[in-house]
This record gives sequence, C-alpha cells and structure tokens, in this order.
Amino acid sequence: MTDPYEAIARLGTAPLWRYYGNLFAAEPKSRAVPYLWRYAALRPYLLHFADALSLEEAERRVLMLVNPGLTEPPATTTTLYAGIQVIVPGETAQAHRHTAAAFRFIIEGRGAYTTVNGERVHMHPGDLLLTPGWHWHDHAHEGDGPMLWLDGLDYPLVNALDAGFFELYGERTQKAAAPDDLSSRQFIHGRLTPAWDPQPGPNSPIGNYPWTETARAFHAIADDAVGSDSDGVVLEYTNPWNGGPVMPTIGCRIARLRPGFRGTPRRQTPSTIYHVVRGAGVTTVDGQRLEWGEKDVFAVPGWALYEHANASASSDAVLFSYTDAPAITALGLYREEIR
Amino acid sequence: MTDPYEAIARLGTAPLWRYYGNLFAAEPKSRAVPYLWRYAALRPYLLHFADALSLEEAERRVLMLVNPGLTEPPATTTTLYAGIQVIVPGETAQAHRHTAAAFRFIIEGRGAYTTVNGERVHMHPGDLLLTPGWHWHDHAHEGDGPMLWLDGLDYPLVNALDAGFFELYGERTQKAAAPDDLSSRQFIHGRLTPAWDPQPGPNSPIGNYPWTETARAFHAIADDAVGSDSDGVVLEYTNPWNGGPVMPTIGCRIARLRPGFRGTPRRQTPSTIYHVVRGAGVTTVDGQRLEWGEKDVFAVPGWALYEHANASASSDAVLFSYTDAPAITALGLYREEIR
Amino acid sequence: MTDPYEAIARLGTAPLWRYYGNLFAAEPKSRAVPYLWRYAALRPYLLHFADALSLEEAERRVLMLVNPGLTEPPATTTTLYAGIQVIVPGETAQAHRHTAAAFRFIIEGRGAYTTVNGERVHMHPGDLLLTPGWHWHDHAHEGDGPMLWLDGLDYPLVNALDAGFFELYGERTQKAAAPDDLSSRQFIHGRLTPAWDPQPGPNSPIGNYPWTETARAFHAIADDAVGSDSDGVVLEYTNPWNGGPVMPTIGCRIARLRPGFRGTPRRQTPSTIYHVVRGAGVTTVDGQRLEWGEKDVFAVPGWALYEHANASASSDAVLFSYTDAPAITALGLYREEIR
Amino acid sequence: MTDPYEAIARLGTAPLWRYYGNLFAAEPKSRAVPYLWRYAALRPYLLHFADALSLEEAERRVLMLVNPGLTEPPATTTTLYAGIQVIVPGETAQAHRHTAAAFRFIIEGRGAYTTVNGERVHMHPGDLLLTPGWHWHDHAHEGDGPMLWLDGLDYPLVNALDAGFFELYGERTQKAAAPDDLSSRQFIHGRLTPAWDPQPGPNSPIGNYPWTETARAFHAIADDAVGSDSDGVVLEYTNPWNGGPVMPTIGCRIARLRPGFRGTPRRQTPSTIYHVVRGAGVTTVDGQRLEWGEKDVFAVPGWALYEHANASASSDAVLFSYTDAPAITALGLYREEIR
Repeated sequence: MTDPYEAIARLGTAPLWRYYGNLFAAEPKSRAVPYLWRYAALRPYLLHFADALSLEEAERRVLMLVNPGLTEPPATTTTLYAGIQVIVPGETAQAHRHTAAAFRFIIEGRGAYTTVNGERVHMHPGDLLLTPGWHWHDHAHEGDGPMLWLDGLDYPLVNALDAGFFELYGERTQKAAAPDDLSSRQFIHGRLTPAWDPQPGPNSPIGNYPWTETARAFHAIADDAVGSDSDGVVLEYTNPWNGGPVMPTIGCRIARLRPGFRGTPRRQTPSTIYHVVRGAGVTTVDGQRLEWGEKDVFAVPGWALYEHANASASSDAVLFSYTDAPAITALGLYREEIR
Repeated sequence: MTDPYEAIARLGTAPLWRYYGNLFAAEPKSRAVPYLWRYAALRPYLLHFADALSLEEAERRVLMLVNPGLTEPPATTTTLYAGIQVIVPGETAQAHRHTAAAFRFIIEGRGAYTTVNGERVHMHPGDLLLTPGWHWHDHAHEGDGPMLWLDGLDYPLVNALDAGFFELYGERTQKAAAPDDLSSRQFIHGRLTPAWDPQPGPNSPIGNYPWTETARAFHAIADDAVGSDSDGVVLEYTNPWNGGPVMPTIGCRIARLRPGFRGTPRRQTPSTIYHVVRGAGVTTVDGQRLEWGEKDVFAVPGWALYEHANASASSDAVLFSYTDAPAITALGLYREEIR
Repeated sequence: MTDPYEAIARLGTAPLWRYYGNLFAAEPKSRAVPYLWRYAALRPYLLHFADALSLEEAERRVLMLVNPGLTEPPATTTTLYAGIQVIVPGETAQAHRHTAAAFRFIIEGRGAYTTVNGERVHMHPGDLLLTPGWHWHDHAHEGDGPMLWLDGLDYPLVNALDAGFFELYGERTQKAAAPDDLSSRQFIHGRLTPAWDPQPGPNSPIGNYPWTETARAFHAIADDAVGSDSDGVVLEYTNPWNGGPVMPTIGCRIARLRPGFRGTPRRQTPSTIYHVVRGAGVTTVDGQRLEWGEKDVFAVPGWALYEHANASASSDAVLFSYTDAPAITALGLYREEIR
Repeated sequence: MTDPYEAIARLGTAPLWRYYGNLFAAEPKSRAVPYLWRYAALRPYLLHFADALSLEEAERRVLMLVNPGLTEPPATTTTLYAGIQVIVPGETAQAHRHTAAAFRFIIEGRGAYTTVNGERVHMHPGDLLLTPGWHWHDHAHEGDGPMLWLDGLDYPLVNALDAGFFELYGERTQKAAAPDDLSSRQFIHGRLTPAWDPQPGPNSPIGNYPWTETARAFHAIADDAVGSDSDGVVLEYTNPWNGGPVMPTIGCRIARLRPGFRGTPRRQTPSTIYHVVRGAGVTTVDGQRLEWGEKDVFAVPGWALYEHANASASSDAVLFSYTDAPAITALGLYREEIR
C-alpha cells in the first residue's frame, strides 16, 4: 500500500481526525469583528457619488458597510449586510427582485418612495420599509434634497445557502397598481387586520412601519415598561399574519435606552446590526468599545458579549437593530447567555 | 323473544334507523332565530335596575339578551351570549373568574374600569375590553353617570362542552398589580411587540382595544380599501402573539358599511352577534328584516343567510360583531356560501 | 312603570342575577352518567335485527348506546356517540357523507370492507378504520358470518354547534378508485411517509390502523414502558401529517393495563368512551363501579373521577378508547386533575 | 478630496455598484460539484486505519467525503457533510455532543451500538440512527467484525451560521439510563405514540428507524404506489411529534427506483447526498454522469439538475438520501423546477 493518507486524498476524502478540532470548537468564534461606521464620515462621500455617478450607471448607489473580517465576499456580519444608500431628486432606481430579503430604515430626506409589488411606499426619517424576498421593487425621488437610508439584506445568508436568484423587471419602474401606502394604512392601527381576502404568509404585508407609530408607542409606554436588562425598552416589529418577525430570516427591533441605562452583558448566537436613531453611547463588544453617535451603524457578531450604555444622564438613546434570529431560531440553533 | 325494540331500550340502546333523519339533516337548522334587541327600549329598565338593585345583591347587573329559540338554558345564539350591563358611580362588582371567555364593548359613560388579573383597564365608548377565560376580573366606577356596555361571553359553548368552572376572588376587588392600561399601551401601536419576557398564548394580552385606534384605522383606510362584498370594510381585532382572533373561542370584528352599501347575501356555519356602533340599516336574515339603529344588538344564527344594507345614502354605518368562528374553524367545521 | 321583570321579559331579555348560579357553577356537572353496555346482552338483538331488517330499510343497522342522562337527542357522552353496527354477508350499506367525523373499531367477523373516498378498506378484529368528516363511505360484506363493529361519531358535538351537513351519494356504493387498503400500506410502517404529492390536512390519511400493528407495538414495548399511572401503557393513534390526533375532534387511544394494574384516580374535562378489547376489570367513575368484560363498552363523562383496575393478576387487559380531547384542547378548555 | 474610492475603503466600506453582479446572480451556482465516492475503493483504507489508528488517537475514525469544490473548510455539499466511519470489536468512541445534528446509516457489520442521551441503540445494516443536536453520544462495538456506517452531519451549515458548540462528556462512555432501543420500540409501530409524558420537540425521539420496518414498508406498497416522476417511490422518515422531518435541519428519505426507472429531470435549492443501499444506476447531474453501485455515495449540489436511472431492467435500486430541505424551507428559500 502506498501512503494511505495520499491514497485517500486521491479518492476525494480526508481523515476527520486531522480536522476535528477545527470543525468542532467548544463555542463559535465568528470571523466577523465588532465594528462601527460613522455616518458623519461617510455622508460626504455618499453625496459625492450622488453627484459623480448616475443611477443608470450604478443600479443602486450604496456604500456597503464591510466588516473587516468578512471582505470576501463582503458582508457586515456572517449572515447580514448593511449599506447606506443615497438617491437625489429626479432619480429612479431600476426595478428588480431577488430572493434575498431586504428592508430600508430611513435616515434623512423627504419626498422619495419605493414601489413594492405595485404599491408606492413613501419614506420619512425613522420609517421601516420592507421589500421581502422576490418582491419587485424600485425607488424614485420627487422631493428636493438627497434621501439617505440604511439598507439591510440577508444576501450573505441566502448566498451561503446557494439560494440566491435575481431578476430585472421588464421596465425601469413599476406602475402603481394599488393606492399609495395602502398596506401600512390598513394594518398599522390598533392590531386591526383586514378580514376580507386574507393572504397569510411568512412575510409581513406591511410596506411601511412609520416612525410616527413608533414614536407613539414609545410615548405610550412612557416610563412604566419593565424592559430588558440588556436591551432596554425593546420592541419587535411584527408580521400581522402570525405575530412573528417581519420576514422569515430577518427580525427588526427598536429599543429605547433610558438616560443612564447600562445594560447587563449578554450574548446570543444570532448576529445583530445596530443603527443609532437618536442619542449617543457606548457598546462594549467582547471587550472592544464602540462609541456611537446619531446615525452611526455598528455590528455585533454572533456569540460576542455585548453591553450597551447610554452616555447621557438626561436623554434617551434610541437604537434600531436587525438580526438573523428568526433563521437561527427556526433551525433550532438559538442560544443565549446573560451574565 | 319479547318485543326486541322494548328489549333493546331496556339495555340502554336505541335503533339508529329510527333516528337517522333527525340526527343527520341535509344542512344545519339552528334553534336560534334571527332577532333584534332595541337599545332604546332596554335602557330605561337598565337604569331602573341600577337604581332598584344593588351590585351586592346582583353580583352583575345585566339584562341577558335571550334568543326566543334558546330560552332553556338562556343564550343569544347557540354558542354565544350577549347582555347589557350597567354600573353606576361608586359601585364595584365582585371579583371572580370563569373558564368562559368574555369581553365588553363599551356603549356609553365614562369613568369606570375593569381590573383584569391585576391591571386596571379604563373604559370609553367604542372600546373593546377582554377578560379571557380564567382571568380574574372586577369592575368599578369612579365617574359620574351610568356606564353601560355590551357583555359577550361563550358560556353557552363552554357549558355545552361540560367545561365551565367558576371561582370567587378572596376579596371584593383586586388590588392594582401593574400600571393602569399598560397592556394596551404596550401592544396597540404600530404592530410593535414588547420583546422582553414574551409570553405567547392563545389569548390576546391586550386589555383594551381603544376606540381611538379603531377610529384612526377607519380614517386611514378611508375610501380606498376594497372590503368584503358581504361585510364591508371589516377588520378583525387580533392577538399580537399569533395574529389570530383575540381569544380561542371568540372572534371580534368591526365593520364600516359605506353610504348606500348593500351586501351580497352570505351564510356561514358560525353564528354572529352584532352591535350597532353608528348609523342605521337593515339586515335581512333568512328572509326576516331586522331594522337596526344606533346601539341596537341583533343575532344572526349559524348557516342563516344574511344581507346587510346601510339605510343611509350619506353616512357610514359601523357594526361591531363577534362570532364563534375561531372555535368552529379549529374543529374543521367552518363552511360558508356566498350567493 | 309596570312590573319591570315582566317588561324586560317582553323585550326578549332576562335578569342575569336570577340565573347566575345555574350558568356559572364551580365546576362542570355533566348530564351524562357513568354507564356500561354489555356486549353479550346486545349481541343477540343485533343478530335478530340483522335477520329481521334489511339494510335497504335501515340505511345503517346500528344499536345506539344511549346514555341515560342524554336521551334527547340521544348521545353516549355530551359530545360523542357510540353504536354497535352489524352487517351480514352479501349486504351493502348506502354510500353517504356527513360533516360528523366517524370511525369503526372492529369487534368480530371477517370479509367486510368499507369504501372511503374511493379506497376499499378491509376490516379485521381490532382494526381502527377512519371515515373523517365529509368523506364518502359505504360498507359491503363479502365474507361468511356477521360482522360487528363499534361506531364512534362526534355528531352530538357537531349538531350542538349547528354544523351538521349530510349528503347521499348518487349511487348505492362507490366504485374502487384506488388500490385496496393503499393508504394504510403506504403510511403505517416505520414512520415513513410518502413524499410525492403530500396533502397534509387535519385528518389522518390512513384508512385503517390494523390490529396487527397495534399488537406488534404492545409486543415491542413489552414490559419496559413506563406508562401512565392512571391509564397504563396508553398509545395514541396519530395523524402522519402532524403527529396529532387522527381527526380534529376525536382522539383514539389503545391502552394495555398490566396484570393487577390499579390506576391513580384522574379526571379531565374531555369525556371518554371505552371498548374492552381483551380482559376484564372494574372502572370506578365518581364512586360508581363499572365491571367490564370483553367487548363491553362504557362511558366516562367529562370531569368525572375515574379509576381503572385490571381484575386479573395474570392477564393483560386492553382498552380501546376515544375522546373529544382534541376539540376541548383546541378551544383552550382542557383541564385535568390527578389525585 | 482624495480618491473617493480609496477614502471609502479606508472607512470600511465598498461601492456596491462594483460588486452587484457577483452578489446578485440570476440563479445559484454552487461551489460544490456533482461527485461520487466508490465504497469499494474506500473500504480497504477504512480497514487499514481501523488497524493502524486507535480510537483513542482518532476520537472518531472517519473518512470525510470532501467535495472537490468545497475543500476549505471541507464539506460534501454547501450545508452537509458525509463520512464513512469504521469501528472494530472491543472499541469504544469517546462520548461528546455538538450542536451540529448527526445521523448514521448503517452499511455493514453487526454488534455495535451507539448510546444517545443514555439509551443504547443497536445497529444493523440499513438502519437509520439519529443523534440530534446537543445529544450526548458515544459508540461501542461488541460484535466480531468491522462495523461501517455513513455519517451525515450539518456542521457546514451550523459552522457557517456561527452556531457550533462542542463538549466532551465527563467519562469515556455514558451509562445506560433507559432500556436498550426503547425509543424505537415505543414509536415505530403503527403510527402509535406513547401518550404518557409527551415531550414534543423539533427532533424525532426515535433512536433507530430499523431497516426491517423500511423493508416492510416497501413490501407493503409493492407496485401500487404512484411515486414521484423524478424520485421514484420515495418515503420520508418523520418525527412522530409533528409529522415533519427527523431533525430541523436535515431531512432523510429512502427511495425505491423500479426496474428500468428513468426519472424526470428536476432541480431544487436544497442539496442532497445519496447512499446506494441496493442496485446500480446512473444519476446525471448538470450533464455529468455519476455511475453508482451498491454502497457508493454521491452528492447533488443545490439547484443542479439531476436525473436518476436504474440500470437494471429486472431489479430495484434503493437510494437513501438526506438534504437540507427542512432548513431551506423554514427560511422561505425552497424552490424547485421539474423539466
């Protein structure tokens, strides 16, 4: 017999006993690292490209927030992506669809809308707009200043599972096939759900969870909600059909950290990306301090220990966040630890 | 052999062939009949009893709306009960709980509240308050006029299934164990759900679906909702944990019938009880005309063909309704027919 | 004001305070009573009617087991019905369907089959055959002695909910539209489920749970299963699509009581009907002794305290049973107590 | 402004427009390739290592079947792993647990068992044994020849999601804490499920789906099952608690391809690994012919077009297979195409 290790390699196999430790570690250690992107630093470049690069050339004009540990292919956490997109008045972005699920959380500007499966959904700062997997979507801007938003997608997950499909729409933009903002108006108030023609599904039918409603929620629960020791007064955007997360792979939340809030350290297998809606503070992630201010974005890898602190003794901080928790949970892989 | 029919009767049996037609009819024919109760006629008696009968004597001061076909035991439809309850300032109603599920839809008055498992829930006209099965509840009135509401319960169903339990609370009323109206404030806005300490269950955690939110919903969908041909712009109150009906045996809805609306005739196996929030109209049930005005209550038995019409060419009518559809559906017995 | 009690009665209402105690009792007290039917006493009359009454006259030749507390309409427990059916060689029973769910548990005879939605399902003693709601079914006997079985239906429940529909088939019997006994052969072995054309639903697709498999199960778990203190080694027949009960309103079980078994007293809101497959014993129900022998049937009302005892110190007893537990549980009304 | 592309790179971002095509392809193109491993070629090396390497040194003595497209880290398809494991009489394999789900499909030998959470499960050729995520397991061999089996795991998926945990048991092997093979004996027969102490969960409680039952299933459905045009008479091993796949990330199936069977080409987003239990044939995958014989293993990447053919005109072929379909489906990413 020739060298058996050589022989088995030629047969397309490898000895498990030489890989064991690498494949079965005591606990996960993500290649993703804790990282923070400063909005103030990125904004000038976004405006520069808004000027220098037409949407015809760019299809989407977005700065991808690339985790230093995840450059090839580029991603923000192992399963999730974040980018900052900008469009300017008069522009339209080509209609397309992909199996990757997406949302936008609006940062600044007024007068733009996205059209999702025929419904025009208008954007205002603080709004959460959904474009679930395989929904046609295009954007247009009829206002008078730049419009910037956070894009969240699960393409790192979808591509890692060999499940990514993509298709261009036959025309540049969709025609309106429903009254503007109808889905939001029909579903957002009072937990009331239209009872004619119900079409329950894994994706929320709501095009826009408007900031006005989120603000009312925070105002209504004022100071008498218990909240989470680690995450503050944290609310989950839900799918009216089943009460669960807005899409089967991405969960979205919004949290209010009270003045002086300092969270109990916690870690969980899902990864999380945060966007600072208001306020300033520090999140310590596996010992690394991420000092965040308004509109910044930061990434907390899966199983990294994080600890939020609101830097202000007098003002709230508000953090929007999204995670792959729905996916991790559906696969029976959710685990958390609170110190 | 003696007469075999006599013999088998003595053995506790009966010949199926002599009962077949009675037990297996081509379609259901409820003992319940279509019926309407006029609020204006009942109100003086409610006020009379509010004066003549103390809550200590009455435990609950309610006129039961008894369907002429269902007097023994009294019920409003085969599975559901409706009553009009009145309490006056300074009164309290003894705390108790029962496995029957209950709700109240507020008709008139201000200043009363119900305490449900320790949370005080305040009442305003048009509010829907839940007291799910086996939840402690008592009422108190600190306002300055009579308070009247519609009580809905499923005790006819629960008792028919030999599943009714009842218990008095150790004291007359519960102490407040949570901030007033907290559950409603936490869950009602923007489909946002508290993400700390989730306790999903078959009952909605919401103590009050306030009229203000319902009014906003109707206003938001204005005239551009398609609606149901039979039921108008009909919205279901939902359980945030699962998107389904508010309780596992009772579903609650609110419908706007546009000016001049005339519904397509429809029938379904569940039975329905309606309360007129606003407007006037006619519902024809198996050929019988029920002419309803504001605050009236009417019953549509299961599998009865009904047809709603708004009598006004210029004003909306608004109908609150509740049914046993969740129960009927869970048992695989839902069936409907639209003419 | 005339007598207000008289006045409100004329208005279709009743004072709740005069009904309270009747409608809200501390715990359920079924009208059904504990009762036992002796097979040996009934069998001669079944054979008599098999001779005296043709199936053309009878549609179904069944002795209904009528609970003395539930004679109008006749039922065996509040929600369930049991009957003993007999057919003789050469007979056919007219094809029909009804929304009531049904099953047959075969007592004696060979050579008959039922055809359910086009599939012929052959009967052997100990087999459990399903005819779920709204499935066409007819019976035929090609063997050479009388065939007797226990019929179980939920028509008391279905009729109480105003949900009973019935339809005769256009011909006397259905033609075979599938290979004989196919569903059982496809689904019964090894928890293996056909993966082409899956049609999951609330009803089990299995036409027959054959005794041969049940016997193998009892043999396989021999003496090393823990079992229930109250119910012995009790196994639930399941729906392959969801692992739950065979039909949404009826659950079927088979239990082995070891020699000398004496169960811990227990009560539950669902009612149960038992059929003795083998052995003899005593079940005490709310203090009343039901002494059962082979092939007898007995009824345990909901919330009645029962206690099983196998009378033999050397032989097993085997009890088939069915309950409305799936319905009661789906409605949130399940409750049990073990003493 | 310096070169804006350089500047944004320094800020941890990248221009999406330069990555678009790579991240959003028209359809998935797996890095995994169609590939076949011949058992006859591997077996001598397995026996060699059984001799040359002790289990104390190896922890597990397995040849990993490494897809040529997925060497770093090694995997068989994008989400799944296959290996061939060998143990010899007298050996034990160290007890451990991991969040990765695993199963073994027994190829040859007798006398070994695995202990899963305290239950000894004995192995016979054709048996499917489960070790769901985070279940303790160790192996021992008390027979008298080598024991070889196929190991299937989802560690490529679990590791890709940063969700892999691993733990050694405190001792080399677990003590028996339940009767041998109890779970299989309790759950495998007649769709009967123990009704005491139910503990429904996402993993099947069955330790072993024995070949004897699988053989009975194939025998019972004989030639009258319709089967799938693409996959033949294909049966899914199910979880008794919910009727679904055996574990939340891995589905297992067994298919009989009739003599002369030639399947309709099909592709699906999940990937599949096949093991040939019996017979010989050809599977064409994206145009590449994989000619398989008994005990071989082959991989079909996600979205690769496959077409099975049984090479024999007179004998059945039997293929065991496993896929990530439960995971892909739970995330809303399942898609298939039949030509």
